[in-house]
Amino acid sequence: MRIAVDAMGSDRAPTVEVEGAVGALLERPDITLTLVGDRAAIEVELARHPDAPGDRIEVVHAPQVIDPGEAPTVGVRRKPHSSIVEGVRLVKHHRADAFLSAGNTGAVMAAAAILLRPIAGVDRPAVGSPVPSATGTFFLIDMGANVDTRPQHLVQFAHLGTIYAQDLMGVEDPRVGLLNIGTEPGKGNEQTVETFELLSRSPALNFVGNVEGREVIRGACDVLVCDGFVGNVLLKFYESIAGFMAEELKREMEAQGVRLDLKRLYSRLDYSTTGGAPLLGVNGVVVIAHGGSSPQAIRNGIGVAVSAVERRMVEHIAARLGQVAETGESR
Amino acid sequence: MRIAVDAMGSDRAPTVEVEGAVGALLERPDITLTLVGDRAAIEVELARHPDAPGDRIEVVHAPQVIDPGEAPTVGVRRKPHSSIVEGVRLVKHHRADAFLSAGNTGAVMAAAAILLRPIAGVDRPAVGSPVPSATGTFFLIDMGANVDTRPQHLVQFAHLGTIYAQDLMGVEDPRVGLLNIGTEPGKGNEQTVETFELLSRSPALNFVGNVEGREVIRGACDVLVCDGFVGNVLLKFYESIAGFMAEELKREMEAQGVRLDLKRLYSRLDYSTTGGAPLLGVNGVVVIAHGGSSPQAIRNGIGVAVSAVERRMVEHIAARLGQVAETGESR
Repeated sequence: MRIAVDAMGSDRAPTVEVEGAVGALLERPDITLTLVGDRAAIEVELARHPDAPGDRIEVVHAPQVIDPGEAPTVGVRRKPHSSIVEGVRLVKHHRADAFLSAGNTGAVMAAAAILLRPIAGVDRPAVGSPVPSATGTFFLIDMGANVDTRPQHLVQFAHLGTIYAQDLMGVEDPRVGLLNIGTEPGKGNEQTVETFELLSRSPALNFVGNVEGREVIRGACDVLVCDGFVGNVLLKFYESIAGFMAEELKREMEAQGVRLDLKRLYSRLDYSTTGGAPLLGVNGVVVIAHGGSSPQAIRNGIGVAVSAVERRMVEHIAARLGQVAETGESR
Repeated sequence: MRIAVDAMGSDRAPTVEVEGAVGALLERPDITLTLVGDRAAIEVELARHPDAPGDRIEVVHAPQVIDPGEAPTVGVRRKPHSSIVEGVRLVKHHRADAFLSAGNTGAVMAAAAILLRPIAGVDRPAVGSPVPSATGTFFLIDMGANVDTRPQHLVQFAHLGTIYAQDLMGVEDPRVGLLNIGTEPGKGNEQTVETFELLSRSPALNFVGNVEGREVIRGACDVLVCDGFVGNVLLKFYESIAGFMAEELKREMEAQGVRLDLKRLYSRLDYSTTGGAPLLGVNGVVVIAHGGSSPQAIRNGIGVAVSAVERRMVEHIAARLGQVAETGESR
């Protein structure tokens, strides 16, 4: 299996990407990697890893970089030789089985949508994130790719999230919840009220109903569906509140002269180490990693890409969404 | 000053309400209270407080109760002699300066909108909540009253929140932030992009720009504006995550045999003790308390009502929104 890695995406590119890639190669003897980006810069970094298995590393030169703040579609159009566009193109031309990028998320999505095309039955490819809860992990979808959605898009997210949970979380019959402001049917805004109806009439989904903000952390479901605006706000808030609590606890420990080891708790809550989430609903495996990724996160992200390829996630999505579109379910 | 208190609203009514009311009377010699609800039940509870200053307590009998799960407008129409409707009516007829209820929030809002009417210039009365941050407290508006909003409603929330922050938080020139998925102008969904534009063109507001989910807890602003759907999800999630962290920490402390006193931290994060938030934008002071209110929360809620009356919050809203409507700002 060959995974392409955007070497220029993260805040500390290409250092982090190269270190993460080398780690992944040492961990997984069955994969080869293609590093996409500025060849000279990548080779400087590679030289710092004499243990790297050079025979399993290819470098594809991409002289352009789409910056994190750049308008996604503009960036993709104006920079055809950027690491993002070149990386997605490798997947399109079957020169790589998957592509991982910690770069401009919007640009990765735009490049994937333009070059790989959405899977039939998917109107809006989406990005989710595994999120730690009190009882394990749930998958939040969408987390920011789609901020103006219609109910049928949320139903598609439910199907995409179900496949993700089955293929990458190993949940056989994932419970799907709808993020809402009350538990009873009929609660919510126009969008969630209609979405509830559609989800209730979807026999292919294990829909368990509305999930309120206060139930999220309890692990009320395996797949939590929401529009990308709410998902983004919630996820970023979650990230920050863990950091906030850590600071407050440190202060309390210092003031009270007590030492409580919180490594285990924090590592449970720190989902940045999950390494990334696949863009769901395009014809190819594209994994989106955090701009602030560590080498460990890149390594884990490569693992996510490997799993998605191995489990045949894209084929499963195509089969499921094709069937949904055919039977007219939820339309 | 006379405050009417719904004695039948909370999950443990009327015990909690009567205890909270007696506490408020002992604390504030300058107020009188009207307890609204089932006279017999209230008198049983009052008999348990021999220290209660009976000369400052009036009971108004209301034989009906709108249940927490009841459809708000239906409840208000079918139960004209419910404690909620009778309580709002006392404000309408100037027999009370304010009304506090821990009952069905939607019903309180509906009764207030129908009987007291929105203030001129306010299309949608809103409910906010003071929320603890790393640096103090900010006011989140709306927290669930309005789940399908248009940009001009969010601008009105910004004005309502500004008055709240000035009158009840003592902030002279409140910084207004817009909850969004990115900090740059142009980021967001259709609603927030347009709202950003309108807020930027509102000279009467100290608009500081977009606030991302991760900035919320940092105290990036004094008034955080969002639609009621997002606000409700965020607030309930916040509540629950504090509880989740508390459980996790307890487990860690037990496992490690370490004792860290977290009372101070939790009391900072526990905003249930703030007692309630006024419904903003109607012609009268109506304070909405949590259904799970403690006697302490009821007492504090009465304090919120007293402050809102003393600071002339309703007059300030009327003056400000009237002016905004007149000058055509943000329309």
